[in-house]
Amino acid sequence: MGTVRAWAAMEPGGALVPYEYETGPLGRDEVEVAVRYCGICRSDLAMIDDDWEISRYPLVPGHEIVGEVVAAGPGVTGVRVGETVGIGWYSGSCNRCVRCLSGRHNLCGEAEGVIVGRHGGFAERVRCREPWAVPIPAGVDPRTAGPLFCGGITVFAPIVELGVSPLDRVGVVGIGGLGHMAVRFLAAWGCHVTAFTTSPEKADAAREMGAHEVVGTRDVAALDALAGTLDVVLVTVHAPLDWDRYVAALAPGGRLHLLGGVPDPVPVRAFSLITASRAISGSPVGSPPVIARMLEFAARHGIAPVTEPFPMSRVNEALDHLRAGRARYRVVLEADFG
Amino acid sequence: MGTVRAWAAMEPGGALVPYEYETGPLGRDEVEVAVRYCGICRSDLAMIDDDWEISRYPLVPGHEIVGEVVAAGPGVTGVRVGETVGIGWYSGSCNRCVRCLSGRHNLCGEAEGVIVGRHGGFAERVRCREPWAVPIPAGVDPRTAGPLFCGGITVFAPIVELGVSPLDRVGVVGIGGLGHMAVRFLAAWGCHVTAFTTSPEKADAAREMGAHEVVGTRDVAALDALAGTLDVVLVTVHAPLDWDRYVAALAPGGRLHLLGGVPDPVPVRAFSLITASRAISGSPVGSPPVIARMLEFAARHGIAPVTEPFPMSRVNEALDHLRAGRARYRVVLEADFG
Repeated sequence: MGTVRAWAAMEPGGALVPYEYETGPLGRDEVEVAVRYCGICRSDLAMIDDDWEISRYPLVPGHEIVGEVVAAGPGVTGVRVGETVGIGWYSGSCNRCVRCLSGRHNLCGEAEGVIVGRHGGFAERVRCREPWAVPIPAGVDPRTAGPLFCGGITVFAPIVELGVSPLDRVGVVGIGGLGHMAVRFLAAWGCHVTAFTTSPEKADAAREMGAHEVVGTRDVAALDALAGTLDVVLVTVHAPLDWDRYVAALAPGGRLHLLGGVPDPVPVRAFSLITASRAISGSPVGSPPVIARMLEFAARHGIAPVTEPFPMSRVNEALDHLRAGRARYRVVLEADFG
Repeated sequence: MGTVRAWAAMEPGGALVPYEYETGPLGRDEVEVAVRYCGICRSDLAMIDDDWEISRYPLVPGHEIVGEVVAAGPGVTGVRVGETVGIGWYSGSCNRCVRCLSGRHNLCGEAEGVIVGRHGGFAERVRCREPWAVPIPAGVDPRTAGPLFCGGITVFAPIVELGVSPLDRVGVVGIGGLGHMAVRFLAAWGCHVTAFTTSPEKADAAREMGAHEVVGTRDVAALDALAGTLDVVLVTVHAPLDWDRYVAALAPGGRLHLLGGVPDPVPVRAFSLITASRAISGSPVGSPPVIARMLEFAARHGIAPVTEPFPMSRVNEALDHLRAGRARYRVVLEADFG
């Protein structure tokens, strides 16, 4: 129990202001984490703006959290006080349904979002339930690890769950917070990686991160030249694409996988799917065991998000930087409550 | 070489008329089959009507063929003269691309359709290339086996390729030529099967074929009650559905799989896919090794299509019967050229 200092939006779209709230007793399976770093994800903007109409105010955003466990409920067995852990989009799951018991906690019907109806990581401290606080192993830098817990696992989980093979040719549409991590993971995974971006500056960056090829996201001739070649395309953008051309770019058996919440329905032609055995799919973040394996993989391959640090007291400036599309590639706040 | 008596459409939508054509020398990897039975598939109607704008006239339909090998090219090793075989949608593939060599000949870029630019099974004889003539094992009745080679493999291949588990709850939308075989296969596969049909008569039939549950295809309340429960839904109809409700009926990780050429684009909401890790996909017929395993499975479980026999000389009557939606559930022509 105690007072938590935080930054909160008091109304939809509002600037964040200092805000304090009280915590109750720590639950049996809960851990409390002293926040050291917290990345900013586009979902924080969506929640601040109430885009999904599920926000509750005051709203303390932040769900790419790295910090130190400062308290643990009596039932907690997976982490210990003093340990450095990360917390992402989810702060809890039922842990007893068939999906949780199968290691797919991210698909639990009762999964609880860190900033959905509760307070997140733009704060001194934050809580979550086991097994959602995942220890950060040696070889992963806590200063840049935050974005792995939402953006990173969002692109890493489908690589695992869809059974992407190192033999595959994989496209990554959008080289932003998610896309740049996808390129790094896929290059280390052994795949042929094609990055799609409209920015010449990001094209160069994508090549440095391991992309073998870079194509303009709306370059019709280049897209047509890719027809039938890509085994998997990860779409990390929120804007509509030339969907027919992207589906046509899929190899037989290929899959267009959506990770960005494109608002308008995607029109899918049954024939394009049927004739070449293609799929269109999507997925949310990953489950704790996949997060743990991702951290191990990132450590082994020296993969870290490219981050821009801001002190948490300059959170509004940091949010504006992201809103303006200037983030390269993920903004990370450093807690400075003093 | 020789003359082949057949039934052909001479123009788009035309009634079939007796037609003869000459064959050239048999290719090295070709087999010639004396047709005994040939099922009628909706794709035959589409080809007769030139719905897909790929038909060439005179057009001899028929691609659910059962017959006896009467000649084999010098390179043919997989079947022998005198053997009873089946031939489905495809009559050839390159047999050397990475997909053919991986046992996915149905995704070969050079795969050749039996009735696309060549003559099919409403005839005395028909040819195909190895490995597309698949021997019919003991325990599979040649009189009803034809429909397995197109309709049957169309529903069986995704059961195999998508890794459908006997633990899964699977929906089958449409209890027609494809759907009734899907229900039988899935029941024998050990799945929980929900059949979707608008016909009370077919509802009873679906239960007899092994469906555990039957739901009205457009029954909004029943569909809503299924929300989040189905692991796989096989869509065998060609008409648009209430797509949002069908996607919502999918369990987390579920898949809506299209097998009917729904003409209008299917509007897919990215959020419905992302939040529950769902997919929308499609597939064509299966490859020869999967056809062979299907026949083995059908023999083991005593699964045969429910067919209505017509002599081939009454082919126009049979086509009208199918066009009128009266087929229960697949029409099979018996060659009677005399």
